Amino acid sequence: MTRAVVIGSGAWGTAFAKVLGEAGAKVTIWGRRVSVVEEIRDRHTNAGSLPGLRLPEQVTASSDLAAATDGAELIAIAVPSQTLRGNLAEWAGHFGRDATVISLMKGIELGTTKRMSEVIVETANVEPERVVVVSGPNLAPEIAEGQPTATVVACLDEERAKRVQHALALPYFRPYTSDDVVGCELGGAVKNVIALAYGMAAAMGLGDNTRASLITRGLAETARLGVALGADPLTFAGLAGLGDLVASCSSPLARNRTFGEHLGRGESLEQAQAATRQTAEGVKSCLSIRDLARAHDIEMPIVEQVERVCHEGVDPQIAVKLLMGREMKPE
Amino acid sequence: MTRAVVIGSGAWGTAFAKVLGEAGAKVTIWGRRVSVVEEIRDRHTNAGSLPGLRLPEQVTASSDLAAATDGAELIAIAVPSQTLRGNLAEWAGHFGRDATVISLMKGIELGTTKRMSEVIVETANVEPERVVVVSGPNLAPEIAEGQPTATVVACLDEERAKRVQHALALPYFRPYTSDDVVGCELGGAVKNVIALAYGMAAAMGLGDNTRASLITRGLAETARLGVALGADPLTFAGLAGLGDLVASCSSPLARNRTFGEHLGRGESLEQAQAATRQTAEGVKSCLSIRDLARAHDIEMPIVEQVERVCHEGVDPQIAVKLLMGREMKPE
Repeated sequence: MTRAVVIGSGAWGTAFAKVLGEAGAKVTIWGRRVSVVEEIRDRHTNAGSLPGLRLPEQVTASSDLAAATDGAELIAIAVPSQTLRGNLAEWAGHFGRDATVISLMKGIELGTTKRMSEVIVETANVEPERVVVVSGPNLAPEIAEGQPTATVVACLDEERAKRVQHALALPYFRPYTSDDVVGCELGGAVKNVIALAYGMAAAMGLGDNTRASLITRGLAETARLGVALGADPLTFAGLAGLGDLVASCSSPLARNRTFGEHLGRGESLEQAQAATRQTAEGVKSCLSIRDLARAHDIEMPIVEQVERVCHEGVDPQIAVKLLMGREMKPE
Repeated sequence: MTRAVVIGSGAWGTAFAKVLGEAGAKVTIWGRRVSVVEEIRDRHTNAGSLPGLRLPEQVTASSDLAAATDGAELIAIAVPSQTLRGNLAEWAGHFGRDATVISLMKGIELGTTKRMSEVIVETANVEPERVVVVSGPNLAPEIAEGQPTATVVACLDEERAKRVQHALALPYFRPYTSDDVVGCELGGAVKNVIALAYGMAAAMGLGDNTRASLITRGLAETARLGVALGADPLTFAGLAGLGDLVASCSSPLARNRTFGEHLGRGESLEQAQAATRQTAEGVKSCLSIRDLARAHDIEMPIVEQVERVCHEGVDPQIAVKLLMGREMKPE
């Protein structure tokens, strides 16, 4: 029986633990908050993050990372992107020498413009071939309900990708393997920013034509950046690109879209944070993605405008007008 | 001043005439139904197709095709796909010898598996370089309201594409040129079939992860067919592929999605036709697209299942389960 640890007891970490457990692994969720750990361990629920979910018996929780990771073959990490580096320094000593480290995070580090897998490799003394990225149209509340979906399991090491694929496969959760780690990570990180723009457009009453154009142009600028960084352009047409983007834009459950709606109604960043009780990943990543794009001389007009709305006080109405009014050219 | 004719007084023909007129052309809409022609000519409205729309003064209507096409540089056709060949025999004699023929239709001919531009070239004695395809996320009711969107103007002749681009450009309607006629036409035709599947899934209560997977896998099978027929794979990631597909799946205004919802609720084809008072394009095109795919040995599992639901009485619940339960493999 595969032993797995999921670091992070939020919605996605918990839903991922459910999938691993139902697919046959013995799973420990590690979390800092004692009340959540006890609830998962004693009642197999996590009502704060996923109300209604019942975790399988073989999923438990602990706040002792050394004990949880002892003998674990799979270590999945689902913490806020910008906290990863600081935490890894403390955690990495506990990771087994051949353990597979799975990144469930979708962000680009501020300041360094590094992807999450790069931060793991740098900070946790893990070879790049041991890092797996899982990404796709995977809204946690729907996975908790067993709604059918698919995902991408990306790793430089094809055999390792296949092992993770089999450790996750369920009738309602279908993993596909890939070797495009860069493409999967960029797809996930940039879609948070595009979903902010989509939420703004939705709140402004723009129709489905406009929104579909935004998704299309957003994916195009994601792919431009990806290709510059060595990703396979086809990844962006797949589940970790288009699939994740469409799910995050369509769903009222998606955090970045919801956050964008608050901004689109004219609220300030602070007001939107207060209303949603969190900062959406895209609000931070729009800064690092903009920097990454500029460093590679790639035009990302949607990311630029989202950054201006979030951090420079630009009116979303003006930002969207600027986006729609660009020069005519071949597609 | 450019003179243009739009053949077909339905929602898309009327909205396209509005765009041409606002961009500066003198436009005549040709229609068979005298009451609609008179309403457009006398009151500049078409309340049956687009309630609330007010057409510009320079858009008029006629039921005399010879008079309408006399001196027209642009002839746009927006009639049901399966009626095109029969009608063209009658109309083509009126088309000027250097007129540009614009196809607004999204279908594949039953029996012949021809694209609409191929039917035009074959039947109307028009050189392929004179045929332009316009396709994108262009739901007619939203264009009627002036909601911002973009579209693709595809032609083998780049200069002709540019002329049409300029004849259509408005602050809220942004045309991009392309030379990929095949890709644009396939994107438009197949999306009708995928939107039927999407509507079924939506009516069955499947969530945004599942629906996003369906859009992603649907676009992938469209691109597979397109590449086999000589299209540029990037077209499918653009406005005439992804953009049109997302708009048609997302919008409650979209006919194929709505029709799919009726089927997904367990209604027969006849019941769905009665409820929507029409047959969605995808219901017919799923047959010809399936035939086209088989002739080129391309797997199109979503199109196959939609065809079975529409024409072989397969239960949509079973069709969707089959789609989600396919073998694990690399993406």
